Amino acid sequence: MRTDQLILNVNVYNSYYKKFNLGNVAVKDGRFLYIGTLGTETFEADEIIEGEGRTMVPGLIDIHLHIESTMITPETFSYGILRHGVTTIVPEPHEMANVFGVEGVHEMIRASEDCEVDMFYAIPSSVPATTLETTGGSIEIADIDQLMQTEKMICLGEVMNYVDVIRDPGGKSNQILQHIRTHYPDLVIEGHTPKLLELDLHRLIYAGIDSDHTHQSLEGLAARIAAGMFIEIQEKSMTPDVVDYLIQHSVSEHFCFVTDDVMTDSLVATGHLDHLVRKAIVMGMSPADAVYAATFTPSRRMKMNDRGMIAPNKIADFLLLSDLTDFEIDAVYKRGLQVYDRHNPLPQREPLPRFPAHFYNSVKLGLMTAIDFEVSAEQPDGRYGCRVMMVNNVSTFTEELHGAVEVRGGQLQWQESEYGLIATFERYGKNGNRAYGLIGGATIKRGAIATTYSHDNHNLLVVGHNPEDMAVAANAVISSQGGFCVVCEGEIIASLNLPVGGILTEEPLERTAVQVSALRSAMESLGYDHYNPIMSISTHSLPVSPALKITDLGLIDVGAGKVVPLLFPLSEA
Amino acid sequence: MRTDQLILNVNVYNSYYKKFNLGNVAVKDGRFLYIGTLGTETFEADEIIEGEGRTMVPGLIDIHLHIESTMITPETFSYGILRHGVTTIVPEPHEMANVFGVEGVHEMIRASEDCEVDMFYAIPSSVPATTLETTGGSIEIADIDQLMQTEKMICLGEVMNYVDVIRDPGGKSNQILQHIRTHYPDLVIEGHTPKLLELDLHRLIYAGIDSDHTHQSLEGLAARIAAGMFIEIQEKSMTPDVVDYLIQHSVSEHFCFVTDDVMTDSLVATGHLDHLVRKAIVMGMSPADAVYAATFTPSRRMKMNDRGMIAPNKIADFLLLSDLTDFEIDAVYKRGLQVYDRHNPLPQREPLPRFPAHFYNSVKLGLMTAIDFEVSAEQPDGRYGCRVMMVNNVSTFTEELHGAVEVRGGQLQWQESEYGLIATFERYGKNGNRAYGLIGGATIKRGAIATTYSHDNHNLLVVGHNPEDMAVAANAVISSQGGFCVVCEGEIIASLNLPVGGILTEEPLERTAVQVSALRSAMESLGYDHYNPIMSISTHSLPVSPALKITDLGLIDVGAGKVVPLLFPLSEA
Repeated sequence: MRTDQLILNVNVYNSYYKKFNLGNVAVKDGRFLYIGTLGTETFEADEIIEGEGRTMVPGLIDIHLHIESTMITPETFSYGILRHGVTTIVPEPHEMANVFGVEGVHEMIRASEDCEVDMFYAIPSSVPATTLETTGGSIEIADIDQLMQTEKMICLGEVMNYVDVIRDPGGKSNQILQHIRTHYPDLVIEGHTPKLLELDLHRLIYAGIDSDHTHQSLEGLAARIAAGMFIEIQEKSMTPDVVDYLIQHSVSEHFCFVTDDVMTDSLVATGHLDHLVRKAIVMGMSPADAVYAATFTPSRRMKMNDRGMIAPNKIADFLLLSDLTDFEIDAVYKRGLQVYDRHNPLPQREPLPRFPAHFYNSVKLGLMTAIDFEVSAEQPDGRYGCRVMMVNNVSTFTEELHGAVEVRGGQLQWQESEYGLIATFERYGKNGNRAYGLIGGATIKRGAIATTYSHDNHNLLVVGHNPEDMAVAANAVISSQGGFCVVCEGEIIASLNLPVGGILTEEPLERTAVQVSALRSAMESLGYDHYNPIMSISTHSLPVSPALKITDLGLIDVGAGKVVPLLFPLSEA
Repeated sequence: MRTDQLILNVNVYNSYYKKFNLGNVAVKDGRFLYIGTLGTETFEADEIIEGEGRTMVPGLIDIHLHIESTMITPETFSYGILRHGVTTIVPEPHEMANVFGVEGVHEMIRASEDCEVDMFYAIPSSVPATTLETTGGSIEIADIDQLMQTEKMICLGEVMNYVDVIRDPGGKSNQILQHIRTHYPDLVIEGHTPKLLELDLHRLIYAGIDSDHTHQSLEGLAARIAAGMFIEIQEKSMTPDVVDYLIQHSVSEHFCFVTDDVMTDSLVATGHLDHLVRKAIVMGMSPADAVYAATFTPSRRMKMNDRGMIAPNKIADFLLLSDLTDFEIDAVYKRGLQVYDRHNPLPQREPLPRFPAHFYNSVKLGLMTAIDFEVSAEQPDGRYGCRVMMVNNVSTFTEELHGAVEVRGGQLQWQESEYGLIATFERYGKNGNRAYGLIGGATIKRGAIATTYSHDNHNLLVVGHNPEDMAVAANAVISSQGGFCVVCEGEIIASLNLPVGGILTEEPLERTAVQVSALRSAMESLGYDHYNPIMSISTHSLPVSPALKITDLGLIDVGAGKVVPLLFPLSEA
């Protein structure tokens, strides 16, 4: 019988028994045709692949991630993850949608079409996630309908405002959920449900949200599975107690691994979903179970019946491993064709511009001077209580600290305080909003950082200790139409241009990874004390992440869901 | 918090952990809202249901069955299975489609709309299953498109001609499979793959068929699961070795229970899917695993994400069991409302005619006389070899026996032989075809049986030992527009009218069950030696079932897939 590829002598992963069987595999028209002991006496193959006893597993599938977190384009992302064995992903273009609305979603999909990795897009459900910020775009119900009609959307992306889902029956989140359930009842709905338990958890599931990818406690994990949630385990949930629980209990159908957000340099240095598989094995999970959670369950969750297993009729995406326990990937095949060879990796082709012209012109701000970082106060001269955003050194949460600061001549004398300044400037040409706050804790101790990579609104965010450095940093970012800039004593010490919507670069992967790494080092050299300073600063503007954040509308008390003033009478402190 | 129903103190089945937990359950708008320890202190319920420690399991889901096998209408079927805890079914109207084509499918769906049991229909994929018979209707690709556009079809029903799928790339089965895969790639495709193994099995799966509900051998079962098939276990597959295998191996995701064909009297006396659950438990399967295979896996197979578990947001179809091990059903609830109470069962409402007028006028044959059962022969007078359909007493297969018979005066002297006569008459007014054969083995030894309930073509089939009885039986069936009639010495000793398309009755369940039981007894009284004589005789005309069968085109050699002559020179015997 004729076939295209015949892979001989491989230890094939069988997803249905979670076992490995030595044998041969025939591939025809990009799909597995046969797995078993028959070989060259039965099949006449165009290509023979010598397995040499290596282990064959399905291509990995990552169903919850944001490409924008890696600050590279889909094309570069595809190049970057393929060598890590990831052959199918479900990205949610939440950030691009915050910048460009539904057009951002369309353009990310367009930019993914020629990629070797298969990309099935999630509809951003929470753009913006709150009404407490000015974004470049929004996703409304009409946009969702338009996406469902014109694109192949695979699910509704994470519904971020879980509090509103439970408390505000008529709110936008519930309007969207109701619309999806009425008009697209078979669409998978992804959740974001940190810490919920008992009746609140059940009410959220009752509203139609039946997965969670946030950090899992042991109690929360068990409660979610018991209530019918599918759990997407990201690296931060891989604590010893959680992984032990997953090993000890028969819950393999109910979880998978996902990456969510991966930094560019981590992708190059540490890997992608393969890293989680490797980590799970190191933590004691059997390789068979770890592979299951990166192939079988994610495909099933997303109703991708055509892939995720090495079985007849499934798409022939597979990996050859030289070592299973180390999950050492020798070769990656997509639809039967080799796309990565560890012994002969291909360099990335120089990426070409992929987006419409106006995507490179989204930072609508004039150049700044030091005066832009002088903070006027309405209050009479005197000493005031002030809210300080205290940066945590292990998470993206902040704390609200109450300090004291001087107002003199109508100006906040912030430079005399022990705190830095955090400023944000609406950058879509919508209203010219700007807001100021004070910052302390794990952030930089001198110099300045500016960025448009500031979730979710991606307005220009500047943190610094003197107006001059802040203006230099801001102007560098404005001039390059977005990105990061780190300045010390008037000198740019690191920068990363992100000209696509102010959040992505079209530079190749390795070059970007080096820049991102240099950026981290530069931030650390100014005293930033965080395992991921880039993620830390880029969430200062995220008004769904506790506790005190800043947007162009002002300081946000996240718990109260409202804008709060920077200054208050000292008597109230 | 307000809720509709609150079920207190129940031992609730959790599908995700396959465990039972004591607690309370809140239902709102027909869906489960909450399961846990909270109770009346939290919920203000319109209705309190006292569980009294009983076991609560999801409503049973049967995803592979043919309502026509029970010879009753969807309305009566719904009444009949609800008390057995079955709340959702996936019927394939294969027989009604053979009689009326796509209209038969539409009308079965219409007749199901007011039923309490939720019915999601499968598209009959194999109507007719061969070209060796004249049927009333057929299902072509255009019909499938029409059904997909106008009805909510849940899957493509069993592709019966598995030999053609493998051997005939351009045949109708492959045309349909190709069409479905191109235009409805997410549609579930159901299979019928008896005995296939190794490369043939993998080729069939490669063609898109990934389930099997036929009789499973242990070897076939393991091979199917390993190749990615979902196994639908019907009662005849529940042999000790198969059930032991299912218990011993971690394959609970990969099989469910189905009934396929249930006789009317069995439904009343023995039950439905509950009977399989009970049987599995008796055979050693844990109740938790048995319930799983009748609720969780069938719903998942059919992508019915809204049911099959007692979990928030799932449809509140559930059973209260007074005894789990005996699976004794006390009460059945549909969307939170009680629809069956074992202590106060409601009688069936007298069914009303549900079908269009011409559905009651489908037997287009004039009355017959004894002459219609005289068989002319082209051969000169003499003794000839003859093919005899030998009826097996344990299966629906027949064997081809070569006997001898006399031709005299241009007439086959069949009454002088030791065999009976089997005759079939095309009854749709299409071509007036008729065919004759000889029959022996486990069939009747005297008298006659006539029926239009003859798979798949449902032409008039008559088996008998004298032309007079055969004419009486045939005329009774013709006069009543279809059904069964058993005659002995000129007297009708049992009959069952099936006026809807010649295959269904609109009589109520219990009355029909009594008639069916009487019919079986009458057939047995004439010497029929089979555990299910009704199923036996109704498959004599099924040209996909080995080995020698009869249709209006003549005797069919099923293995060779062609018409063969009744007589042949004795020298060839």
